Amino acid sequence: MVCTGHHCHPNLPLQDFPGATHVMTKQTDSMCKVQQHNVNKGIVNLVIQESLCHIQILSLGIDSFKGKFFHSRDYKNPEEWRGKRVVVIGIGNSGGDIAVELSRMAKQVYLSTRRGSWILNRVGDKGVPIDMLFNNRMNVCLSQLLPVGFINHFGEKQLNKRFNHKLYGLQPAHRVFSQHPTINDDLPNRILSGTVSVKPNVKEFRGSSVVFEDGTVEDDIDLVVFATGYTFSFPFLPSHVIPVSKNKVSLYKYVYPTGLEHTTLAVIGLIQPLGAIMPISEMQARWATRVFKGLCKLPPMSAMMKDINAKEEAMAKRYVAAQRHTIQVDYIPYMDELAKQVGVCPPILKLLLTDPRLALNIIFGPCTPYQFRLHGPGQWDGARQAILTQWDRVTEPLKTRCTPEPQSQRSSHSLMFSVSAAVLLSALYYSRASLHALIADPSSLLDKIRAFVPLPLTTQ
Amino acid sequence: MVCTGHHCHPNLPLQDFPGATHVMTKQTDSMCKVQQHNVNKGIVNLVIQESLCHIQILSLGIDSFKGKFFHSRDYKNPEEWRGKRVVVIGIGNSGGDIAVELSRMAKQVYLSTRRGSWILNRVGDKGVPIDMLFNNRMNVCLSQLLPVGFINHFGEKQLNKRFNHKLYGLQPAHRVFSQHPTINDDLPNRILSGTVSVKPNVKEFRGSSVVFEDGTVEDDIDLVVFATGYTFSFPFLPSHVIPVSKNKVSLYKYVYPTGLEHTTLAVIGLIQPLGAIMPISEMQARWATRVFKGLCKLPPMSAMMKDINAKEEAMAKRYVAAQRHTIQVDYIPYMDELAKQVGVCPPILKLLLTDPRLALNIIFGPCTPYQFRLHGPGQWDGARQAILTQWDRVTEPLKTRCTPEPQSQRSSHSLMFSVSAAVLLSALYYSRASLHALIADPSSLLDKIRAFVPLPLTTQ
Repeated sequence: MVCTGHHCHPNLPLQDFPGATHVMTKQTDSMCKVQQHNVNKGIVNLVIQESLCHIQILSLGIDSFKGKFFHSRDYKNPEEWRGKRVVVIGIGNSGGDIAVELSRMAKQVYLSTRRGSWILNRVGDKGVPIDMLFNNRMNVCLSQLLPVGFINHFGEKQLNKRFNHKLYGLQPAHRVFSQHPTINDDLPNRILSGTVSVKPNVKEFRGSSVVFEDGTVEDDIDLVVFATGYTFSFPFLPSHVIPVSKNKVSLYKYVYPTGLEHTTLAVIGLIQPLGAIMPISEMQARWATRVFKGLCKLPPMSAMMKDINAKEEAMAKRYVAAQRHTIQVDYIPYMDELAKQVGVCPPILKLLLTDPRLALNIIFGPCTPYQFRLHGPGQWDGARQAILTQWDRVTEPLKTRCTPEPQSQRSSHSLMFSVSAAVLLSALYYSRASLHALIADPSSLLDKIRAFVPLPLTTQ
Repeated sequence: MVCTGHHCHPNLPLQDFPGATHVMTKQTDSMCKVQQHNVNKGIVNLVIQESLCHIQILSLGIDSFKGKFFHSRDYKNPEEWRGKRVVVIGIGNSGGDIAVELSRMAKQVYLSTRRGSWILNRVGDKGVPIDMLFNNRMNVCLSQLLPVGFINHFGEKQLNKRFNHKLYGLQPAHRVFSQHPTINDDLPNRILSGTVSVKPNVKEFRGSSVVFEDGTVEDDIDLVVFATGYTFSFPFLPSHVIPVSKNKVSLYKYVYPTGLEHTTLAVIGLIQPLGAIMPISEMQARWATRVFKGLCKLPPMSAMMKDINAKEEAMAKRYVAAQRHTIQVDYIPYMDELAKQVGVCPPILKLLLTDPRLALNIIFGPCTPYQFRLHGPGQWDGARQAILTQWDRVTEPLKTRCTPEPQSQRSSHSLMFSVSAAVLLSALYYSRASLHALIADPSSLLDKIRAFVPLPLTTQ
């Protein structure tokens, strides 16, 4: 019952779970070694997926490169690269984090990206964590109702408000919801201050130089970090159990292999969600225990294959074709899908009649795992109260200093302000003919001004 | 002709300026030592101000503190504090920068602030540097026209959009324009992630513990950094030449001592501007050379004292009473004040008739120093072109990757969108009676929703 993901710590206290077989792979020096921790006590087989390096770079001449190079998973800390010149390849979450951290020590960081990327902020509007703001059922409903183009346009506009992705050299050809989000609060400042320089894809390594696809060359590079992503495999299992092809895995709802005679194996956490991975892993585990106990039944193989294929097709249609986008799930729809199997979906329609306050919190509030503890197996009496007070637990850790009430400042200028406002309104009234034209086409005024004042930052 | 400020590098190539006496103080181990570099070749006496520590902390029991402590000016790098517990006292620009940098290495950073602070972002809206966005003549004009309370309200609202200062424990009692701005792009993320914890003022040091004024105690503190600001003095000059009392300095327009028989001394860069210090220092130096050459005359002493007193009064009225707010200047008004002395103010009204494109760029564009090179002493023929192309020089260094054109994505959902819009409009039409009430008081709908959905983050 363990979430995996390449960023997590491998030393998880699996022995605390009686009845678990913990099979774990550990990669050393670009070789895949298998470590097996057998805690064979019972019924659940747990598999932790571990990622493999994805260095397809020999053709670029990396063997002739004079500096150091390694995959992002071998990056440990920035200190040893103080004063050095570094190229980071790839702008996923690993690449972005490493580039930003190195930029505070290194002499110069070049962040090479083939496609570019939309960058999200962890600290959302008003300082609220972004997943608490956006992962709610109302937004899921809107995203299903509104046209994809409109949602992308709206999302991109919001992101460009924070920093213009075109101006910063990051704008990709694809739309914002066609990629797994890269989250990085510090990158804009690093790019604007020049410590991180965005570059296109690498064409060639030559001595201690790196040649980019636009023909530019950066010399005296000390380090290249390949943040080129991860692949996964299950080398400790017979290959037919969980077939993997081009990072595509044939698992029913990303959990169950379809080819086993008995359902004795569940894969937990082999997903890349648009939201937190931990609550999803918990829900997968809740489902797994019920299936192993015989309380839930899986459908026949043909139905499972149909579901797997449908998911694959939807993913191919929605996302940029990349090894990165093979296990994508949307947080709430996938949670609901699993919850339906377990029988713990929140009864929203019923609650709207019987407990509207709770129902509205479930619809408009963040989709915390309490929602799946209101009834059914694993029900928890504290769930309702936990949902109603969930914002308190976001704000509580921030209450480390009592803030004073702000001064109320009556202004001596209020008369001048009133007069100015009156003059402005009168002017608008007497020029209401042109006002009409202005309302019909508000950009005309902007165009008139723009003829004189070039504002490249808004027109780019 | 050197900008000073406590963050600047002391090794400036003053020998490149023939005719300069370079007198420089350097502080070592909390003692003020005086270094004198005499490059006596002529007419200009340059004085670099250096800051003294401002540690008035003996009464808090710092002598019994078992950890290390030093003033922010002795902070060099974060590596040696890896895994340590640190208290940073003061949330000016030094304190904020040090807290953020330490938080990436230290186990925990506590940022203690007496008053709290409004935090500005260096990366402004759409990713444009904030001083390029806001330091323009139009904004100066608006700030003089509109009531102070309104401007503060507007500014605070903008800052709270980025993160709620009350929620983050930073909101001060004073208004945003009553303090010298603290600029820090990284602090919100550090506070939300918990690596920086905001605390009130320190009450007492006790062994290895720090006691705060709200009674909370943090134990096992390894380091205390006093980012408590700076004082300045001129110990290498007879005290009557530049009298300093409580960080208030008696200099005509922050440049000329009033008590000298002959004007042979100019202080360059002894200002804390709301904008860049370098262009102002250059303008002060342009004025100084003209005064020393006898081409500009200073007014009689009584007029100079009147100007000094008027500035002091205005500052006391506007800013929170603190040693920090004694040499505050507004970038554009102070530049214009100096430019008037030199005779290089941009002739905006004339330009509106003869060269409206240039005039509009001067009014709405960032106030770059080119504006003071259009005519008069030190005129530069390239100034006009430089103003018209100044945004190019902001965007040019960012053009390191050619961005592709975004995909246009025709949506298959557009029919559903149209139908939804039609349904929505119809609903609005048939409920136009209540719509009327809604327009009169749009918050009523929000209140109705809020009764069910507690959103503490918007109501705080």
